[in-house]
Amino acid sequence: MRGLMMDEPLTLAAILERASRYFPHIEIVSLRPDGTLSRIEYGALAKRVRRLARALQEAGLARGDRVATLMWNHSAHVETYFAAPLAGGIVHPLNLRLHPDEIAYISGHAEDRFLIVDDVLWPVYERFRDKTRFERVWVVPFSGMRTPPGAESYETLLAHSSEDFEFPEIDENDAAGMCFTSGTTGRSKGVVYSHRSLVLHSMAECMTDCLGISQSDTVLSLAPMFHVNSWGLPYTCPMAGAKLLLPGCGCSAEDLLDVMEEEGVTIACGVPTIWLGVLDALHKNPDGWKFRGPVRVLIGGAAPPQSLIRELDRFGLRVIHAWGMTETSPLATVGRLKESMREWKDDRKYETRSKQGYAVPLIRLRLMRPEGEAPWDDATPGELEVRGPWIAASYYNAPEAANRWSPDGWFRTGDIATIDPEGYVKILDRSKDMIKSGGEWISSVDLENALMAHPAVREAAVIAIPDEKWQERPLAVVVLRDGEHVEPAELEKFLSTRFAKWQIPDGFVFTKEIPRTSVGKFLKSQLREQYRDWHAPSESSKEE
Amino acid sequence: MRGLMMDEPLTLAAILERASRYFPHIEIVSLRPDGTLSRIEYGALAKRVRRLARALQEAGLARGDRVATLMWNHSAHVETYFAAPLAGGIVHPLNLRLHPDEIAYISGHAEDRFLIVDDVLWPVYERFRDKTRFERVWVVPFSGMRTPPGAESYETLLAHSSEDFEFPEIDENDAAGMCFTSGTTGRSKGVVYSHRSLVLHSMAECMTDCLGISQSDTVLSLAPMFHVNSWGLPYTCPMAGAKLLLPGCGCSAEDLLDVMEEEGVTIACGVPTIWLGVLDALHKNPDGWKFRGPVRVLIGGAAPPQSLIRELDRFGLRVIHAWGMTETSPLATVGRLKESMREWKDDRKYETRSKQGYAVPLIRLRLMRPEGEAPWDDATPGELEVRGPWIAASYYNAPEAANRWSPDGWFRTGDIATIDPEGYVKILDRSKDMIKSGGEWISSVDLENALMAHPAVREAAVIAIPDEKWQERPLAVVVLRDGEHVEPAELEKFLSTRFAKWQIPDGFVFTKEIPRTSVGKFLKSQLREQYRDWHAPSESSKEE
Repeated sequence: MRGLMMDEPLTLAAILERASRYFPHIEIVSLRPDGTLSRIEYGALAKRVRRLARALQEAGLARGDRVATLMWNHSAHVETYFAAPLAGGIVHPLNLRLHPDEIAYISGHAEDRFLIVDDVLWPVYERFRDKTRFERVWVVPFSGMRTPPGAESYETLLAHSSEDFEFPEIDENDAAGMCFTSGTTGRSKGVVYSHRSLVLHSMAECMTDCLGISQSDTVLSLAPMFHVNSWGLPYTCPMAGAKLLLPGCGCSAEDLLDVMEEEGVTIACGVPTIWLGVLDALHKNPDGWKFRGPVRVLIGGAAPPQSLIRELDRFGLRVIHAWGMTETSPLATVGRLKESMREWKDDRKYETRSKQGYAVPLIRLRLMRPEGEAPWDDATPGELEVRGPWIAASYYNAPEAANRWSPDGWFRTGDIATIDPEGYVKILDRSKDMIKSGGEWISSVDLENALMAHPAVREAAVIAIPDEKWQERPLAVVVLRDGEHVEPAELEKFLSTRFAKWQIPDGFVFTKEIPRTSVGKFLKSQLREQYRDWHAPSESSKEE
Repeated sequence: MRGLMMDEPLTLAAILERASRYFPHIEIVSLRPDGTLSRIEYGALAKRVRRLARALQEAGLARGDRVATLMWNHSAHVETYFAAPLAGGIVHPLNLRLHPDEIAYISGHAEDRFLIVDDVLWPVYERFRDKTRFERVWVVPFSGMRTPPGAESYETLLAHSSEDFEFPEIDENDAAGMCFTSGTTGRSKGVVYSHRSLVLHSMAECMTDCLGISQSDTVLSLAPMFHVNSWGLPYTCPMAGAKLLLPGCGCSAEDLLDVMEEEGVTIACGVPTIWLGVLDALHKNPDGWKFRGPVRVLIGGAAPPQSLIRELDRFGLRVIHAWGMTETSPLATVGRLKESMREWKDDRKYETRSKQGYAVPLIRLRLMRPEGEAPWDDATPGELEVRGPWIAASYYNAPEAANRWSPDGWFRTGDIATIDPEGYVKILDRSKDMIKSGGEWISSVDLENALMAHPAVREAAVIAIPDEKWQERPLAVVVLRDGEHVEPAELEKFLSTRFAKWQIPDGFVFTKEIPRTSVGKFLKSQLREQYRDWHAPSESSKEE
């Protein structure tokens, strides 16, 4: 027997309509390249979305056609986020930080038909345009430049369109958006989100124990909109009626702190490296910024060192550690403490908060080992597998990657993790970053986080170095804080309070900067290449 | 093009599994008939649910079969809430406060196959058992009585079953639960909830701007579980990992306050009449109870008088006014203030908070008049219509009621309302309770709420009295607080500051008690019957 409830599809139209009806005067604030702010309210945004959706259909957009974007985080990008899927198409944000050849490959693989590009990114587009075949390219005057010769103007497109447009009926399982993983091995793979998955994910982000996004929030969304939809926030904020602050094309930690203070940010979301920079700025100028109230800092994309959580707390920035991937939309786990942990000692609380957390509603996890499912004992590592209604079931046109799903349909994350009896996941490493030394595994992430707790250390990456005897040995690549100096022996001693001797890196090399991926994570493949031939100094040379 | 996301059905299994995995030691606390508390943790509950589901299948439960309950609010009722639908059947709580003939009619109409009944309700069952044909009847030892002769024991059923049971695969659109409206006109109608609608509704209840139910909450669920699933809370609390407190079979306002204090309740949910009683108890003993922190009081089922909201605030009980119906699962609107209203004057805030609020995500509203849609101008009344994924699309086997849905598929609530430009609904009346006087409409709800703001008035119901000249005229039926006395002329004067002369009731009659429906609302049909022949005292008799 079927339920007798309305068959209402979960589509992005419900989000946009709610924002414009109940929160017409709530703003999206965009930071422009010249440092000024531009503002648009949800009411006005919804009208521009209708104009754009109509214009896209008039340009020939058919069901399922891809509209690519090459854009920073700002309100016109949000317009495309809604207009392409609500016109029946798919929005496909291109990762502008990739190599031009890779961007061209991705766009070709996705069969993008149209492109919307920021004026400041036109030079990036020019580096791969010969390898693409967009039918139309529209340029957004993000910095206010003149439209380049041969390009069409986004604003003219909207001006010639009309907001008198009814969105077509859409099935909730229709594709709405596409994001490619920035895989460090092999070709990028496309994840195709549905209207249903995006709506459910936004509901989850509004749940109190997840992110708790509400109409009282001002959300600073630092994750790029070409990286897992900026963690879904450009959809979640309009659903909740939250003010959305978009940081444009990169700004300093001081700029971020300024805008957080001025605009009354209540939750700011970004990868740990951003917050390491912010912490540095706060240390230099501890009384420089006053926030109106408590600020939640959502950290994802990589594990924050425990020291980062502790120190941001001291400045009134309360870290929420969450975990997810492009394939998980991304919200899969949140590292909030449970009520029953309220009376725990601080150390234990911080240790738990620095884990990835437990699954949000509707998401299921398991740890797999060759011999079967691993227990949740905080000790037995296994590969983390995940399933749920906003988890990818396959990549776009990539049958060769079918082995990323288990025979019974779980997504294999490629992360090696333990889970404790309370259900908190601790990711030890990407399986490829795990250091295999003499039959034992060493977690590079554990060593990095321990090193970053040292007062002189700003950043640390630990990589595997080939070793004849042990197969692999760890090497630490360390960036010191300005003006600090420390000897390798001191770091060795610092680690020895927590790690067994065989787990401690064979060496510590100091550098000015650690190379990063396009989304700000440590680019360990480059480090491994760079230090491939590194050898531990001999005992005699140590003595010198 | 379809999205490439997992096709994970939204079913109640996800809720139960999450509760037992992440919150195994969070309790459901039930108040037993003798006033003692019994406790069960989600981990243990999930095992008993598996036992019950298996036992139901072994008893012959087939897909879609109905399992009726005749039970108060306690943990065994929650077990059936999960076990029946997760065994592939449908849970159907019977409204034990209805007339035995009506219960028998409803149970027959629903084609209930099995019954689970509280021992203390066996006498109720005996009054209609001859008119029903349950195949098996199990008795729950809620008070600890011996199982009546001829009945089977619920505990024996579970003891002979096993928790080794895999839930069958379930389509999210399959029926999971059934509740009948307690319509005051015509026969009761059955609403059939699906797994999908219940899961989405629970997600909405966890959203910060809706009820914000979280794992930090202790929820006191006072709405009967036979009335719109106790507002969905027996599903929402396990999803969130919230502690759930079930009040058993009715207790005094003092008992409720005691248990709220002792168990650390953070949110308590019930109809206004319960809170009028609680307020009375607080007035009598203002220092009698100390709560651990702020307590949210969710009021629904009828509009709370503004004075109730104000006074509960004074005692640290912060009212959230929400609106819904059996047909809306029920959560449809919540009367929280928007951030932009924070600086408003208190009076304006209370006026807005006493409205029904604006639609929660995914729910849409409109006001209909004969000539078409009414504007949201806070002035033009129309019938409130609603649609969304947890709104009923039809009643069970009741083609005669098809006119409760508009030709384009909206549910007609039967409520006459206005909506203000911010989107806040104000329900003026059930269309049948509206007083039609000389071509104008008078809202009985407005008059009642104004009267209940008078310090001597405990409760007031305003009904329409037939009138030759004006067609109908209002009559106020008033219950005074203990020891208070007031003259009709004073109430007339009290109302005249807010109402036009023609809107003021023709008379005020004083009574000890206002009759109520089975869910605690004023039973106006009985009052109308009782006072049908009431006549205003003549001018001369007034003078006397």
